[in-house]
Amino acid sequence: MKNIYIIGSGKIAYNIASSLNENQINITGVYGRNIETGNKLAKKVNSKFYKELKIPKITDLIIICVPDDQIKIIAKKINKIATVHTSGSSDIKLLKNCSKYYGVVWPIQTFTNNKKANFKKIPICIEANNDKFKDDLNKLFTKISNNVINFNFKQRKLIHLSAVFSSNFSNYLYSISEELLSDEKIDFILLKSLILETTNNAFKYKPTNNQTGPAIRKDLGTIKKHLNLLSKKKKNKYAKIYSLISEYIMENDDEL
Amino acid sequence: MKNIYIIGSGKIAYNIASSLNENQINITGVYGRNIETGNKLAKKVNSKFYKELKIPKITDLIIICVPDDQIKIIAKKINKIATVHTSGSSDIKLLKNCSKYYGVVWPIQTFTNNKKANFKKIPICIEANNDKFKDDLNKLFTKISNNVINFNFKQRKLIHLSAVFSSNFSNYLYSISEELLSDEKIDFILLKSLILETTNNAFKYKPTNNQTGPAIRKDLGTIKKHLNLLSKKKKNKYAKIYSLISEYIMENDDEL
Repeated sequence: MKNIYIIGSGKIAYNIASSLNENQINITGVYGRNIETGNKLAKKVNSKFYKELKIPKITDLIIICVPDDQIKIIAKKINKIATVHTSGSSDIKLLKNCSKYYGVVWPIQTFTNNKKANFKKIPICIEANNDKFKDDLNKLFTKISNNVINFNFKQRKLIHLSAVFSSNFSNYLYSISEELLSDEKIDFILLKSLILETTNNAFKYKPTNNQTGPAIRKDLGTIKKHLNLLSKKKKNKYAKIYSLISEYIMENDDEL
Repeated sequence: MKNIYIIGSGKIAYNIASSLNENQINITGVYGRNIETGNKLAKKVNSKFYKELKIPKITDLIIICVPDDQIKIIAKKINKIATVHTSGSSDIKLLKNCSKYYGVVWPIQTFTNNKKANFKKIPICIEANNDKFKDDLNKLFTKISNNVINFNFKQRKLIHLSAVFSSNFSNYLYSISEELLSDEKIDFILLKSLILETTNNAFKYKPTNNQTGPAIRKDLGTIKKHLNLLSKKKKNKYAKIYSLISEYIMENDDEL
């Protein structure tokens, strides 16, 4: 598979298409609803932007990089070309009428606008309906990542859910800290060595064994002070999150 | 201040006392309730363990490293020796009867058993009741950290609360992921590059601008799938956390 057509021009499309293209893969076209980002991506990967879904005959793989609820709609328009989607939580079967060969290529990463990801260390999860096609996908994506792994849908769903907790939700906790500190004009960067140590420890030991802080110590005095502080600042949402997580950390400890 | 007496023998006592001692500061004694860890620490810092609170006359600073609710009790036993505690959320005034000089030295870090921290990059927050004493504390702790900062109690409380969200609670989220993945015998290390990218982005950009995932995309289909999966696995606590944080991320976006 050396001639690949990209559907979508968002962050995943941008990162996958440009990484493949840097590794001597031909991008036969980019189709997307957004003319601006679509044209930009097509130019970046030395290809052509399509306003309508027209797929050059030379294409031997289509990579669908659109929001989950759009995959089904796009899939209906594909006929007899091997196709993969790039969603962590969508069934491979959404593509079963596209071709004899269909699959999933899901990179476990959070992508940022205007920042090109380095795929080398990013795990790429592969699923395919057919062993031959799975081998082809493994070969293709090994060009851009040293960490290509095969997972079934059950596993992939669970990894996606875990990623939401560990990445999306922990980022939300960081944004709470950032907002609280900004009240006293303190830069969030003050917490850098603490946060880096927390993540380092998570991989050096095990998060379940690393829990520190007032809740695991059952330090009800400090917990009360923190809740009072949040209530004074009228941060009721943050107080709810604080109470809920603290309660669960305390309960977990009882189960030991 | 070159002769320091340590009260407590837990993780903070261990890390502060040994870092000071490695920087040519004399530890005049270690007092603690735990004979085993107390003796171990005293040996490590070439000092003597005291089962009773006896303070050698040469001592010019006492560092209290005990749980928050014990600080007051210990403080009552101190008479006319400069004293600091090491708590992020306790008032400096708890020590006002110890001496003319009292203060707080709080390192913003999570400490792990059997792992010696490198203080050089760890921010150490200093508060003192008196400018001369504050200068002395700044000089002393600059020996072990390049990041000694002066904060008042209002600021310190807020930093401590933020640290709970960013470190203790994010570690709890990691432990949820670890547990979910273990059901399919998948190692948590799979999420390493994702988590490192999330924290890198937090400091490179701003967490409030970095939010990704189903909630910020208002992808209700994926959110529902995740909640169903948690409910099937009877992880009701995790479902509650998932719902609450997702709801708040979606609301935040409405305020933009």
